[in-house]
Amino acid sequence: MIYLTRRERFSAAHRMFRHDWTDEKNMEVFGKCSNPKWHGHNYELFVTIKGELSDNHGFVINISTLKQIILDRIIQKLDHKNINLEVDFMAGKIATTENLAIAIWEELKPNIEREGATLHCVRISETENNSIEYYG
Amino acid sequence: MIYLTRRERFSAAHRMFRHDWTDEKNMEVFGKCSNPKWHGHNYELFVTIKGELSDNHGFVINISTLKQIILDRIIQKLDHKNINLEVDFMAGKIATTENLAIAIWEELKPNIEREGATLHCVRISETENNSIEYYG
Amino acid sequence: MIYLTRRERFSAAHRMFRHDWTDEKNMEVFGKCSNPKWHGHNYELFVTIKGELSDNHGFVINISTLKQIILDRIIQKLDHKNINLEVDFMAGKIATTENLAIAIWEELKPNIEREGATLHCVRISETENNSIEYYG
Amino acid sequence: MIYLTRRERFSAAHRMFRHDWTDEKNMEVFGKCSNPKWHGHNYELFVTIKGELSDNHGFVINISTLKQIILDRIIQKLDHKNINLEVDFMAGKIATTENLAIAIWEELKPNIEREGATLHCVRISETENNSIEYYG
Amino acid sequence: MIYLTRRERFSAAHRMFRHDWTDEKNMEVFGKCSNPKWHGHNYELFVTIKGELSDNHGFVINISTLKQIILDRIIQKLDHKNINLEVDFMAGKIATTENLAIAIWEELKPNIEREGATLHCVRISETENNSIEYYG
Amino acid sequence: MIYLTRRERFSAAHRMFRHDWTDEKNMEVFGKCSNPKWHGHNYELFVTIKGELSDNHGFVINISTLKQIILDRIIQKLDHKNINLEVDFMAGKIATTENLAIAIWEELKPNIEREGATLHCVRISETENNSIEYYG
Repeated sequence: MIYLTRRERFSAAHRMFRHDWTDEKNMEVFGKCSNPKWHGHNYELFVTIKGELSDNHGFVINISTLKQIILDRIIQKLDHKNINLEVDFMAGKIATTENLAIAIWEELKPNIEREGATLHCVRISETENNSIEYYG
Repeated sequence: MIYLTRRERFSAAHRMFRHDWTDEKNMEVFGKCSNPKWHGHNYELFVTIKGELSDNHGFVINISTLKQIILDRIIQKLDHKNINLEVDFMAGKIATTENLAIAIWEELKPNIEREGATLHCVRISETENNSIEYYG
Repeated sequence: MIYLTRRERFSAAHRMFRHDWTDEKNMEVFGKCSNPKWHGHNYELFVTIKGELSDNHGFVINISTLKQIILDRIIQKLDHKNINLEVDFMAGKIATTENLAIAIWEELKPNIEREGATLHCVRISETENNSIEYYG
Repeated sequence: MIYLTRRERFSAAHRMFRHDWTDEKNMEVFGKCSNPKWHGHNYELFVTIKGELSDNHGFVINISTLKQIILDRIIQKLDHKNINLEVDFMAGKIATTENLAIAIWEELKPNIEREGATLHCVRISETENNSIEYYG
Repeated sequence: MIYLTRRERFSAAHRMFRHDWTDEKNMEVFGKCSNPKWHGHNYELFVTIKGELSDNHGFVINISTLKQIILDRIIQKLDHKNINLEVDFMAGKIATTENLAIAIWEELKPNIEREGATLHCVRISETENNSIEYYG
Repeated sequence: MIYLTRRERFSAAHRMFRHDWTDEKNMEVFGKCSNPKWHGHNYELFVTIKGELSDNHGFVINISTLKQIILDRIIQKLDHKNINLEVDFMAGKIATTENLAIAIWEELKPNIEREGATLHCVRISETENNSIEYYG
């Protein structure tokens, strides 16, 4: 079993809040991250897939294929966007990095399995100090 | 002459556009950076000051003092904010990193001179690939 | 299950040695790391917690809470300190990064469980080339 | 159980291709990585070992010993070399990072076990965006 | 005057040697970097331009334009190539990073001036420890 | 004129204080950096030299020579040492990074000039947020 990790990056705006809470309640729970006028990050996305090595070409999945799946399904929808307002797979969800990691997992899983590999981990680094991992 | 550089970070939302241009014109000039629903970055700010070394304590300026000036005058106003809508020293300016560097220079200069040092350079890294320097 | 990692940093002095060994024996086993006049590092500490996501706010633990626990219990005791002489939870232990990781785990575990999350991993990077992980 | 990771680096040339395929077929599968005139990388190698902590000295394996094993068995053979043409443990294999990780694992395993530790993971970072992990 | 730096990356093979020297002489001067079977690096290229800010759009040069110039003139010719054998602007030159920086400067200068900006610096990082700067 | 920068690293202990000041006065000026029981850092040292390129070999100074000078004159004296107590060229000086940069400059200058190059800059990064540059 071999694990391959591809990093891609996107810059996006977001805010953490619940519609059904007052601004005060949102501020109390989410702090400055709930600023109604938005803020943003340079997110780093690390997608790890795993599988058996093919003797044919010496890899599990062609990294160009993996890169293209991530760009088409994820980066194109997130880069230079507002996560709360513009990203279909985040609609109706609180825009935490935790929820984002799970949503990206759901988007990627079938597309990676179609290529004969298994999705192992979605990791998102929001700042150099904070990151999230999801293993399904 | 000794040069001292302090790094601080802030995460903010912005968009690049002109009020007096159509959306099409803004898109043509600024591309995806003009998205009306905003996007954002983890900005890194590097402030370099210079001056003669004091025999008294072996530095030009106390780094705690420099850090406090940057936090009070710049980071507190930018972190988790919308650069276009919420930052007084960017009001009426196009929210490019170039304009931001100049504005930060103007904010910092008198406060650093008051401490007996000279502001040498303001550098802002917007992404790991793009950065701006301003020397006054 | 979601994993959240928080990075904090501290700069500290230490030396690796045993009281009951001669200087020669310490030098033989620990090399230059046993220098009796100390040396030091910029340590990076990565604390990973795991847990179920709350629908209420979209995270496992509020990252501000996690940060505060790490600062209060660990960083405040280690930053700009001598690990051998000044850190209560390292008293009587050889000041290896391995022992430090275990001691930090013991300090953090009850405090993180009190917040309803589970401590998953303590990782310490001593230099850019050497790091230690402990999973309990 | 404690995990210790040591990073070492090497710069090498390689190309990905199969002798029994035409240049066109190689180009189709491996793309620009199959350039017959070679290209190269600054590879980062992360070797993780695990084991029980010794009360005697507070570590699993002396990091100087681990470093020396990696230098002698791996780096000396790979650094400033052509992976396809000059590295004994890659002879007859397609020079993918996946195959390289497995070959390094095989080289390191007995030497690390001889020191009383267990090899846990070989990770190779080929570029800042692509990396491979192998756990045996 | 504002300075803008764009980073791009390329992975290439090279060797340092002179045709008119024996292998022994090349080895004596260039060491392992003269390996006849090549080695390679992940090079990082930092291009800094300078100029007056335009009130019209708040930048000196559109970063998309700068990026495209670097990709078309430099990266496309160097990435996944052999610097000694395949790069027109390095023909007949010793493949040191020093010569590479000067050659890239010559390639970029007219193209950047055509856009109304001034080329200020070409910096190439060959490894995390070695880098070269050229200012014309 | 070409500029070449070499990075080397050292881990050392230090404290900032003056013998002729009370502990209270030292604490007031230097804060936690004056801890009498020491603390330490992973310092990064960047040495930049400049000179004309030799047609003979395509560089200003052989990077192996530069590396050896830095190791012999600086790193060997600083790595895993106490800057206040064990480093001859820091004797009698306050152990600030500013004073360290100047002292390293004085040590390196004649040795680099002997090789036909000019010392341009000594930069020391004390933490990821603080760095010092000295140009003579």
